[in-house]
Amino acid sequence: MAHIPVDPATPGIRSLFNYRPETGAPLSRLAHALLHGESPLTKAERELLATFVSHGNKCTFCTMSHAAAARHQYGADASIVDDVVYHNNTDRLSAKMRALLPIAEKVRQGGRIVTDADVQAARDAGAVDRDIHDTVLIAAAFCMYNRYVDGLAALTPTDPEAYVPMGKRMAEQGYGG
Amino acid sequence: MAHIPVDPATPGIRSLFNYRPETGAPLSRLAHALLHGESPLTKAERELLATFVSHGNKCTFCTMSHAAAARHQYGADASIVDDVVYHNNTDRLSAKMRALLPIAEKVRQGGRIVTDADVQAARDAGAVDRDIHDTVLIAAAFCMYNRYVDGLAALTPTDPEAYVPMGKRMAEQGYGG
Repeated sequence: MAHIPVDPATPGIRSLFNYRPETGAPLSRLAHALLHGESPLTKAERELLATFVSHGNKCTFCTMSHAAAARHQYGADASIVDDVVYHNNTDRLSAKMRALLPIAEKVRQGGRIVTDADVQAARDAGAVDRDIHDTVLIAAAFCMYNRYVDGLAALTPTDPEAYVPMGKRMAEQGYGG
Repeated sequence: MAHIPVDPATPGIRSLFNYRPETGAPLSRLAHALLHGESPLTKAERELLATFVSHGNKCTFCTMSHAAAARHQYGADASIVDDVVYHNNTDRLSAKMRALLPIAEKVRQGGRIVTDADVQAARDAGAVDRDIHDTVLIAAAFCMYNRYVDGLAALTPTDPEAYVPMGKRMAEQGYGG
C-alpha cells in the first residue's frame, strides 16, 4: 500500500500526479518533452535509456512500463530492449547509443563521475550536443521518477501483461505534455 | 567548462534551462511548485531539504545556491542551515523535520529503502500526508537537478559571495513557475 492516500485503482506514478496536480503537471510535461519531443535520439532510443536507468535503480514500475513502451517503439526489433536491459547485450545498438549508455549509467550513479573522455567518446561515435544533453537529462529525470514512485510505494502491478497496454498508450500518445 | 555549449556567463542550472527551453520550462515550474507553492512545510524547511539532499549528492552549485536561499528564508535563524547541513546538528529543528530528514536521506540513496516505520515515525512527530509527499518529491527532484548540473558540468562559481544575491533572488522571487 502506498505511504499516502492515493487512488488505489491507478497504478504507479499517475496516482501521484493526480494526488498533487501542481507538481504532476510539470512532471508530465517534462516526460513528454524528453521522451516525445524533438530530439536527435529516436523515441525508441529514449524509452530504452529510461528503461535502462530505471532498471539500474531497481524501480519495477518504471522499468516494466517503459520497457513496454520501448518494445512498442522498436516494433519488429522489440527484443533489443530485453537484450540491452536484462542481458547486457548491446550488439544491435548504434555505436552512438553504445557510447551514450555508459554516460546514462554514470549519471545514474552520480553526475560528478561523467568525464570529458566519456563525452568525447560519445562525440567520436557520432553524438551531437543534444544527444549528450538529452541522455544526461533522461538519466537524471528517471533518478527522480524512480525515487518518487518507490519512495511513496506507489502501486506496482505484478502481472507483466498489465504493462503491455500501458506501454502502447505511452508510446503512441506520450505523457500528456 | 560545460560538456555542451551553454552561455558561459550564466551559472549553474539556469544555463541548461536556457539551452533547452522545452525542458527548462517544466523544470522551473516544478521547482517553483515544490519550493514556493502551498505546502505544510515552510519555504525555509523546503529550501533546507533541497540543500541537505544536494549536499549529500555533493552537488556544489545546488548546495551553495539553495543554502543561500534557505539562510535568507530562515532570517535571524540562518545558522540553522549550516548546523544541519554541515554539522549534522538538528537541535533547533522541529520534531517533524527531524523525522522527515531521514526520509529525504533514504530517498536520496534510493526510494526503495523508505519503510512504513520511517513514515509512521514522521506521522508520530506531526507530519501529515503532504509533508511526506513533499519531502519525498523534493528529495527525488534534487537527485535529478544535482545530476543534470554535474552530469553536464555546468558552471559552478567558486566564490561563496556569488551565491548570496542568487539565494536572495530565489527566496524572494521563486523559480519562475
